[in-house]
Amino acid sequence: MSVYLHSAGTVLPGPPIDIASLAEKFDLPSVWEQWVESFIDNPYRHYSVDLDSGKLRFSLADLATTAGERALAAAGAAPADVDLLVMGTSSPDMLMPATVNVVADRLGIDDVATYQLQSGCTGAVQALDVARRLLGSGEHRTALVIGADSCAKHLDLSVDVRSLPPDQQVNGVLFGDGAGAAVLGVERGAHGVELLRTRVRCVGRGREPGQTLNWFGGADRHADRPAAVEDYKAVQDAVPPLAVQTLDEMLDALNWDRGEVDYVLPPQLSGRMTDEIHARLDVPDAQEVSCVRETGNTGNALPFFQLERLLPRMIAGDRAVGVAIESSKWIKAGYALEKVDA
Amino acid sequence: MSVYLHSAGTVLPGPPIDIASLAEKFDLPSVWEQWVESFIDNPYRHYSVDLDSGKLRFSLADLATTAGERALAAAGAAPADVDLLVMGTSSPDMLMPATVNVVADRLGIDDVATYQLQSGCTGAVQALDVARRLLGSGEHRTALVIGADSCAKHLDLSVDVRSLPPDQQVNGVLFGDGAGAAVLGVERGAHGVELLRTRVRCVGRGREPGQTLNWFGGADRHADRPAAVEDYKAVQDAVPPLAVQTLDEMLDALNWDRGEVDYVLPPQLSGRMTDEIHARLDVPDAQEVSCVRETGNTGNALPFFQLERLLPRMIAGDRAVGVAIESSKWIKAGYALEKVDA
Repeated sequence: MSVYLHSAGTVLPGPPIDIASLAEKFDLPSVWEQWVESFIDNPYRHYSVDLDSGKLRFSLADLATTAGERALAAAGAAPADVDLLVMGTSSPDMLMPATVNVVADRLGIDDVATYQLQSGCTGAVQALDVARRLLGSGEHRTALVIGADSCAKHLDLSVDVRSLPPDQQVNGVLFGDGAGAAVLGVERGAHGVELLRTRVRCVGRGREPGQTLNWFGGADRHADRPAAVEDYKAVQDAVPPLAVQTLDEMLDALNWDRGEVDYVLPPQLSGRMTDEIHARLDVPDAQEVSCVRETGNTGNALPFFQLERLLPRMIAGDRAVGVAIESSKWIKAGYALEKVDA
Repeated sequence: MSVYLHSAGTVLPGPPIDIASLAEKFDLPSVWEQWVESFIDNPYRHYSVDLDSGKLRFSLADLATTAGERALAAAGAAPADVDLLVMGTSSPDMLMPATVNVVADRLGIDDVATYQLQSGCTGAVQALDVARRLLGSGEHRTALVIGADSCAKHLDLSVDVRSLPPDQQVNGVLFGDGAGAAVLGVERGAHGVELLRTRVRCVGRGREPGQTLNWFGGADRHADRPAAVEDYKAVQDAVPPLAVQTLDEMLDALNWDRGEVDYVLPPQLSGRMTDEIHARLDVPDAQEVSCVRETGNTGNALPFFQLERLLPRMIAGDRAVGVAIESSKWIKAGYALEKVDA
């Protein structure tokens, strides 16, 4: 059964925070600003936490609900139309209830199947994949798919950033908060954009994680474990070839050659990495759809920001391929869209 | 496409801990023991943490890997046969990588689709549901489905239990740690037990959560929020009618009447609640398959302990219905099995 992408909607919390503001907030020298601009190049990010007061302004459920509302509005769909809700996040508000079920309540969606994936940078594709296949099984007609992340519980405003090693400084600069959503359905819809293929593969056998993110429970919250560790060098080395593999696998399965791709949506770890990966993907005739320089890396939300930019640009016959790579335990994920003839 | 349940495998960490041992450990009076026996009646539970030393003996990945190995062995399947891995848990070892991907590495499973659901007492059914539908889509042949939970990060051995309100005392007594797994496939297999139907419905609209479980990040771990809250009265009131609704919906969809059910696998919050729910389900001719008095409530793992007990008992033509209810934000889940003729 064909599955269509009807809309995308997104939200970013609060104002954009630029590098100069971060430098001022954390008392960092101008050489730090230059270093971040040269080697990371994520000029902006948005936080659920107010940097001045430290106050939480938006929960993950807040962000996810707003993104869901926007995607539903853009699709001309009502909450009552939704009979499947799938969400991906690495940073749920609580362990239980799963945030997806709080969002269902907020949106007025009830008595439907809900699933929340524990996922990172490939989470949006994983959620699209599960929704596409469940819709394809014929038991659902309209799915709301959400990806959202918030670093609120991990953003330590009291830390002396100058004393941190570079890999930990990097972590804070890469990521921002946000939520995105899409409506999928088994009917053609106004756009007529078919979600032809989704593919997720964990390829972590024998490889150390490139990124770990810990949580603490009621009993172990004073434990002396690092909350977040990123092996940025491993990420830089491994992500570009994994992205190329993923694109190749997608094109093979679709029987498309590189010249037939009109849009490419590359992984968005950072502005600099995106440029490098895009060059390596070697699709010079395709338009690149990127957002990380405006949004920061919003994790599970990010591909929805790309889709929101892509949808209005597609004309009949256009083909698009998206790639996401998760460096936690190394996951490759891809998806392909085609705008069918009117 | 038909999907079959080939095997189930489980593991419990450490020795069974009885109520008298808990009373001794936490210096509780004999009236507490009597109260727990009368109103909860979970005689045993198993912990990943050694109660005397406080040392962690098994991670969630350890438990899930062992359960996965046992399910694979019972199915006569090799890790290389698995092309889909789905896990449910409320208590992952880390936020990233998702534990399912660590388990994949440990089992020697690579380059397959992996998904981890953030889920509670209905998580096993959610994972079975996702696996069944993905297998049904024809893109996979053999799925390993895992449910696991560990209260290690939440089990505070330094707390003065006597000073806690009853609902928090209840929480500690209900739950134990464990992991379970099942192998599903699109071929008939040795058992010939078909997984006919799985159904998950979140019905939380306008209802307060019956159970919340919090996590703490690197920045907020000193925050003064309770880690776990359970509204045991709400759970006692709501779970039995939700279980009856779920059974009715399953039977309606299958066109089975109550007299045609040979085995019923009821929700297993506690021994006492299980007895009450089983009576309310009103299937007097069906054999009850329960385990909570031996295992404690192992959350996402529990239905696999029931399935492990069920499988060797089924003969050709036997029908079984399982029900799980999650009180976090109120999720109903059911599944149905039938042993096809030889």
